Amino acid sequence: MRYLEDLAVGERFTTRPAEVTEADLVAFARRFDPQPMHVDPQAARGGPLGSLSASGWHTAAIVMGLIVEADLMEGGPWLGLGVDELRWPAPVRPGDSIRAEIEVVSITPSRSKPTHGIVRVRVTGRNQRGDIVLSMFPNLWVSRRLDQR
Amino acid sequence: MRYLEDLAVGERFTTRPAEVTEADLVAFARRFDPQPMHVDPQAARGGPLGSLSASGWHTAAIVMGLIVEADLMEGGPWLGLGVDELRWPAPVRPGDSIRAEIEVVSITPSRSKPTHGIVRVRVTGRNQRGDIVLSMFPNLWVSRRLDQR
Repeated sequence: MRYLEDLAVGERFTTRPAEVTEADLVAFARRFDPQPMHVDPQAARGGPLGSLSASGWHTAAIVMGLIVEADLMEGGPWLGLGVDELRWPAPVRPGDSIRAEIEVVSITPSRSKPTHGIVRVRVTGRNQRGDIVLSMFPNLWVSRRLDQR
Repeated sequence: MRYLEDLAVGERFTTRPAEVTEADLVAFARRFDPQPMHVDPQAARGGPLGSLSASGWHTAAIVMGLIVEADLMEGGPWLGLGVDELRWPAPVRPGDSIRAEIEVVSITPSRSKPTHGIVRVRVTGRNQRGDIVLSMFPNLWVSRRLDQR
């Protein structure tokens, strides 16, 4: 697995793209965010997003799934202490293909726990046209190498 | 429906509680966040969260579902432009009951769009013991009353 010492500020990764079908989009929204703009194609057309769009929480979950699958920590956990500045600049529509880009922004050894540190990353979700559909700054809790403690 | 002018800073709402079963927790994580700490009770015991725990994105989705169901805008959409300071201070375990509290923090008419404004709310998710399992500040896009434009 990768440790804090294996990461470098400025390092970037990109995941594979994942298609969001209308069925996926509506099923997630029925369960967690059943607003007309997310579950009803007819009603969505008169709504604030113009046509059927994914719940922002669905977009975030898809991006998380792509990151976990890519296994950037090579077996180490992707454990978020929190997320700053979560934004959804453009809607996700049925048929869109979403991929995630990750960039390491900062690496800070923990003051209270010498075994760990905090890695701040910028995560950007883009559709097949390159439009940003999600951006956020997760703060990850990452193990340090034993031999450096 | 409720408009910008119907909301007041300091106003609070609380939703009903929703139980998270182990089956729900594992099903969500298998689909969107298949890390051992979220999908494998055995492996989770040796992991960073000590025992099986919900994906933070599942907790966020559950909280969103409770808020949408409570229909605080009385038919108006709950449309988040973004979310600041999303935190998961304590893990959600199988069998936990989560409820959401919402407090209106600020109300700002839009400068560019006289038809709308931004309502910043504080959302707190708590388990059955009152522990905070999620906190965040969504910024909502809310319609103004026509007669006040």
